[in-house]
Amino acid sequence: MIRIAIYGYGNLGKATEKALAHTPDCVLTGIYTHRPVQQIQPQNASVPVVPAQQIIGRKKEFDVILNCGGSATDLPRTTPMLAAHSCVVDSFDTHAAIPEHFASVDTAAKTGGTLCVVSAGWDPGIFSIARSLASAFLPGAEISTFWGPGVSQGHSDALRRLPGVLDARQYTLPQPAATAAARAGQPVPPALACHKRVCYLVTEPCADLAALEKEIRFMPNYFAGYETEIHFITAEELREKHSELAHAGSVIFTGHTGSGEIHTQSGELSLQLGSNPEFTAGILIACARAAFRLYKAGQRGCRTLLDLSPTLLLPQDPASTRARWL
Amino acid sequence: MIRIAIYGYGNLGKATEKALAHTPDCVLTGIYTHRPVQQIQPQNASVPVVPAQQIIGRKKEFDVILNCGGSATDLPRTTPMLAAHSCVVDSFDTHAAIPEHFASVDTAAKTGGTLCVVSAGWDPGIFSIARSLASAFLPGAEISTFWGPGVSQGHSDALRRLPGVLDARQYTLPQPAATAAARAGQPVPPALACHKRVCYLVTEPCADLAALEKEIRFMPNYFAGYETEIHFITAEELREKHSELAHAGSVIFTGHTGSGEIHTQSGELSLQLGSNPEFTAGILIACARAAFRLYKAGQRGCRTLLDLSPTLLLPQDPASTRARWL
Repeated sequence: MIRIAIYGYGNLGKATEKALAHTPDCVLTGIYTHRPVQQIQPQNASVPVVPAQQIIGRKKEFDVILNCGGSATDLPRTTPMLAAHSCVVDSFDTHAAIPEHFASVDTAAKTGGTLCVVSAGWDPGIFSIARSLASAFLPGAEISTFWGPGVSQGHSDALRRLPGVLDARQYTLPQPAATAAARAGQPVPPALACHKRVCYLVTEPCADLAALEKEIRFMPNYFAGYETEIHFITAEELREKHSELAHAGSVIFTGHTGSGEIHTQSGELSLQLGSNPEFTAGILIACARAAFRLYKAGQRGCRTLLDLSPTLLLPQDPASTRARWL
Repeated sequence: MIRIAIYGYGNLGKATEKALAHTPDCVLTGIYTHRPVQQIQPQNASVPVVPAQQIIGRKKEFDVILNCGGSATDLPRTTPMLAAHSCVVDSFDTHAAIPEHFASVDTAAKTGGTLCVVSAGWDPGIFSIARSLASAFLPGAEISTFWGPGVSQGHSDALRRLPGVLDARQYTLPQPAATAAARAGQPVPPALACHKRVCYLVTEPCADLAALEKEIRFMPNYFAGYETEIHFITAEELREKHSELAHAGSVIFTGHTGSGEIHTQSGELSLQLGSNPEFTAGILIACARAAFRLYKAGQRGCRTLLDLSPTLLLPQDPASTRARWL
């Protein structure tokens, strides 16, 4: 049994708790939260709910921490801090900042003698696997990624952390003409021009909306350069119309092979997720399994899904996996 | 540079030769063939063409053999034979016989101190990765695989090896109702009922067509249990109407998560291949890279794509791969 600690009890933490209840080779041994512990009702009342700052002192109680914090400000700080003491898996999803995040977690993990997996989700994550395999098997292929229509947790989280914002939801929408071009093997504009970002914000009564709007439009890595719509709405409207966390996306690739490159080879991986955090939870748990196995095998440092084989992620032994899935 | 030998110079061997010409980290050092060597014109006239039976004696000239033989009778015999002397990659694709093939190659590779990768292709291969990751990330998901419309090289090869058959082409067609059911998350019949097999055969003048037809319909793992159409045609008709080796297929999965399993999570990987052997060649070459790296790292025995991380398959170093594809 792999003993799991959940660190952070927002949407992703709660979804991970639910998914662990159906994972026979893992057991949840603690929920660590920054909220007042008496406000938290775990699904299974026997699971201890513990203040987040006590996690290091209780590290003998778990094998892997699933860090369920947000990418904007939590994970860059907490994953390296935790990695110095325990194996950790996170879903850090700010693409441009991954090399820096990887390096700081790698250093902490090697210093602390742990094995961590960062950026585990569907993108970065599953879509990264699709992009890299397309590049490996079809050198020179055009590879395009489209996100949405759906709620980006990372972007919603980034909005919620702005001063004066009480709650927020950010929808990412692919531009249909760009998706059609990719499927037809035609040139695709850069990612910035392939997507639109639509924001719904609930703000404090005294918030400076003009300043907030400007701050959002120029936020690097998140909104700068994108066609962005910003709507200020009430808490009631947000709850009624924007409570689902569905998402979707696709990786589309096209290449050419043979004498004169006469043969077109193309493919598409598409996902339709009824609940983004619940799907991401399943990926975090599979990566916890891989981290635990690599740690037991003596490996140390940071990994991503690009370093993990399917066999490491599945609960079965390799021979059963081969017989079943190959 | 990874020094590659091609063993077998049919459709797959020729496609691999073409793909190697565009692979900067690999060099083709020999083509080994069972045909009279003077009949073979390699694309690059400086590449030696050598009788197949001389390959072991020349093993100092290459790092990895790409075994481009057929699954029906060649690979089960030749991959273990070669694995005792050299790292080998093959595309063995008879799903039901993979555990047995894996075991015999694993034994030969461990005895000979080599590292081999078997069943490298798009199915088994890429589709196996998709199925196993869907199962790892979305436990309990319904996962269905559809092949076609397109030419199955393995099934065409199996037909060509029957006595009295001069040439053959086998088209695999998915049953549209089954694909639609999978996409809608509805129950899907077993694989046998999801596909139709259509065979075109050119036979010797004196061939016993009735006996041949019976032998095909009852061929285990290939045709037994499938709706199968058999057509006897002339060599001219085969050449005119059935010379392209296109193929296609998809893996479709649907699962449910959350309290009461209220959220539907689904996805699809689809491939449209203008040339099946040319696409498979790209996979063989990426696996040669992985085999070479694992061998250099001291690993021995047999692997499949389920044991390989994307990082091992790509030519770049892991940090560049992360920065580019994660």
